[in-house]
Amino acid sequence: MTKRFFQLSVVFAGMALLAASCCNKNEVATTSENNGEAAINTIMQRKSVRSYTNDTIASEVMEKLLRSAVAAPSGMDVRPWHIVVMTDKSKYDEIFAGNFNMDKFKQAAAVVIFCADTTVTRAPRENPNAPAVTQPNQIWRDDMGACTENFLLAVEACGLGAVWTACYPFHDRMDPVAEYLKLPGNIVPYSIVPVGYPAGEEEPKDKWDADRIHYNQW
Amino acid sequence: MTKRFFQLSVVFAGMALLAASCCNKNEVATTSENNGEAAINTIMQRKSVRSYTNDTIASEVMEKLLRSAVAAPSGMDVRPWHIVVMTDKSKYDEIFAGNFNMDKFKQAAAVVIFCADTTVTRAPRENPNAPAVTQPNQIWRDDMGACTENFLLAVEACGLGAVWTACYPFHDRMDPVAEYLKLPGNIVPYSIVPVGYPAGEEEPKDKWDADRIHYNQW
Repeated sequence: MTKRFFQLSVVFAGMALLAASCCNKNEVATTSENNGEAAINTIMQRKSVRSYTNDTIASEVMEKLLRSAVAAPSGMDVRPWHIVVMTDKSKYDEIFAGNFNMDKFKQAAAVVIFCADTTVTRAPRENPNAPAVTQPNQIWRDDMGACTENFLLAVEACGLGAVWTACYPFHDRMDPVAEYLKLPGNIVPYSIVPVGYPAGEEEPKDKWDADRIHYNQW
Repeated sequence: MTKRFFQLSVVFAGMALLAASCCNKNEVATTSENNGEAAINTIMQRKSVRSYTNDTIASEVMEKLLRSAVAAPSGMDVRPWHIVVMTDKSKYDEIFAGNFNMDKFKQAAAVVIFCADTTVTRAPRENPNAPAVTQPNQIWRDDMGACTENFLLAVEACGLGAVWTACYPFHDRMDPVAEYLKLPGNIVPYSIVPVGYPAGEEEPKDKWDADRIHYNQW
């Protein structure tokens, strides 16, 4: 009986392991396939969220958003971004004295200001072997667009909501921010992003328009 | 013995089911939690890929990339993008006569040209109640940055590789593209993105620098 019990144990333990392992295999296959799909879904589900609950954002969640932001591509790897995270609502009237929608800002758990260094120190584009000089960075704005978009996608991925608010190149918005933060002359406030947990049920827009896609010619 | 066998069967079948069901529970919990994590991983894993296999890109995969691109946010919902997908390599010498890395382009299954309408027809910003007029769109470049970044993230999510190549504002690159495509005067070629299946093992960069993050002050 002991031997028989042992044999049966082996058979059924094997079945148990097999069941568990099949399940694991399925999980791995599904997760691996769905890794990409989940990212595509996040891109397709991102929407502008303009009203928020009173919930605050845990610091480790905010760090995840910020790490995503600075993982953006950057021309010549210059990484022009500086990011200011505002949570002190008592300062908002002063810092956002431009024509922003202040209600939106005051509801948000945080308002994130994406700033850019508009200069770069390197050899001139026309003469890559010449000594490095400090000069205007002609593509900082493109890096900042990618940086802001990465942040917005991470916001969506974390179940938060946000809305990209243009700051640059509108001086009525930029100047009070630059003045309040005492930004160095080469640093401009590029975009302003209130972020918090969504209070409503905003839906993404379907922006697909086949007429905007061209193959091998205009 | 038959009864004993039956009892053991029940016990071990139960164990097998338990193992499978725990695993299933884990899978569901993990997958749901990991939806967001997968998107964050895609953002963190995106890298510039500059060499590609000979594999072509299925049209439904390319459409997924393009749908992701145009899901980008757009200031005032203007959606300034037009996207030209080039696969006809016989045209590359002419269209990319600027100082591009042509080797990179010729290896890629497709070279995608993100173009922008630099004008918008609407009321002036200073006077939202005035009649609509065609005027420069002051923020098309920001929308195009988000559009290009969405495309690059979808590329990463689909197991493809690509590299953002600046075109605007460099006239030595823009002019041959605009001339070859006979772009209308209000349309500029913004970014050029070769895309294909990665031939190498490029790794993402760790760009985190805590000194670039500021809280409530510069």
